[in-house]
Amino acid sequence: MYRAIYERRDVRAQFLPEPISAIVLGRILDAAHHAPSVGFMQPWDFIVIQDARVKRAVYENFERANRQASEIYADAQRDAYQRMKLAGILDAPVNLCVTCDRERNLGHGLGRQTDRATDLYSTVCAVQNLLLAARAESLGVGWVSILDFGELKEILRIPASHTPVAYLCIGYVSEFRPRPDLEESGWEHRQPLSALIHFDSWDGRDEKRADSLIQNHEETAAKNPGPAED
Amino acid sequence: MYRAIYERRDVRAQFLPEPISAIVLGRILDAAHHAPSVGFMQPWDFIVIQDARVKRAVYENFERANRQASEIYADAQRDAYQRMKLAGILDAPVNLCVTCDRERNLGHGLGRQTDRATDLYSTVCAVQNLLLAARAESLGVGWVSILDFGELKEILRIPASHTPVAYLCIGYVSEFRPRPDLEESGWEHRQPLSALIHFDSWDGRDEKRADSLIQNHEETAAKNPGPAED
Repeated sequence: MYRAIYERRDVRAQFLPEPISAIVLGRILDAAHHAPSVGFMQPWDFIVIQDARVKRAVYENFERANRQASEIYADAQRDAYQRMKLAGILDAPVNLCVTCDRERNLGHGLGRQTDRATDLYSTVCAVQNLLLAARAESLGVGWVSILDFGELKEILRIPASHTPVAYLCIGYVSEFRPRPDLEESGWEHRQPLSALIHFDSWDGRDEKRADSLIQNHEETAAKNPGPAED
Repeated sequence: MYRAIYERRDVRAQFLPEPISAIVLGRILDAAHHAPSVGFMQPWDFIVIQDARVKRAVYENFERANRQASEIYADAQRDAYQRMKLAGILDAPVNLCVTCDRERNLGHGLGRQTDRATDLYSTVCAVQNLLLAARAESLGVGWVSILDFGELKEILRIPASHTPVAYLCIGYVSEFRPRPDLEESGWEHRQPLSALIHFDSWDGRDEKRADSLIQNHEETAAKNPGPAED
């Protein structure tokens, strides 16, 4: 369980063309379907994409969105952005779009009156289950968020009342990198967890106490050296 | 990994008062911190709540929100709603609020231009990692979404630019129920996964093909009987 969490990577550049068997695909979809959902609403749908023409249309969407996205950066940062491979849409044998039905009446609104975003959150829980199940199956997954989602809905004929939450590229990989691509490339670094912990209220910052949670954890990890990055 | 996914439950009524050690708490928080995040933004913060007065204030918030929520139901459905225990705020030794910083500049906006909700989605990935890590540690977690979140921000002094995504009750449990509470009580039933699968586009419904994914999976599960509910 912890290995899957620590060794999961967002994969863009390491996809192999090997197909994914129906049984493995069925397993990771069923893992997604067993995520928690608000009021047991199960608001998700799964569009499994293997048709080369559909992938090509999504890839062209990504290319345009990515070119536009790069324009907010200047100079060296723009170069760094443009050097990174940010999606494996054409390389991955399976693409998967996970959508959220904003109007599904399952659960009869239980838990949804106070926060309308909880159906989207449930759908993300399904995605995260799938990411971890995929890692346990030695499948890499890349989550592509650089897309014009309005156009994606047209390409995939998604009804207006459904929101595409995640567009995923899935396949076997040549390797799982020891650290996230964005960390390896120097784009961003991992925050110290202790800086993100508060006690009893936002103002309840206590570095020493937070460090003690983490230090304990790191001492155990040192005794049981697992993943490189832990 | 699959056991954690299938045996995870949203826990409301089975909490035990046993404390959670710092080392276990550190482990599940570190699991959350190793979720994927858009642009490696790591937009989350964790407020660990053990103070009885803070719990009491949140519980009163829940009670009011829950009373109001029950009013959309009538007759037998309202009775059913009111009979269900929907939160273990006072029973669970640890409460945890996971927030999302909508303005954190880590990741320099990579992947965020096309969908402003991706930071919230990243925070939910952290929550789902924590739910599964907790299950692996034999800890139950209940996700409370029936809260006035504006008031919750005041109680916990959460700054305006941060969104509380999840309020969680965490503790050891007397048992993990074999099925979700809302399924057991008859409030809602689990959808057949095959009805939620599409091929290549939304219109690409193919019951036979979808069933073959799932049947394969169920045949394997029958050979390796694992969790009751799989």
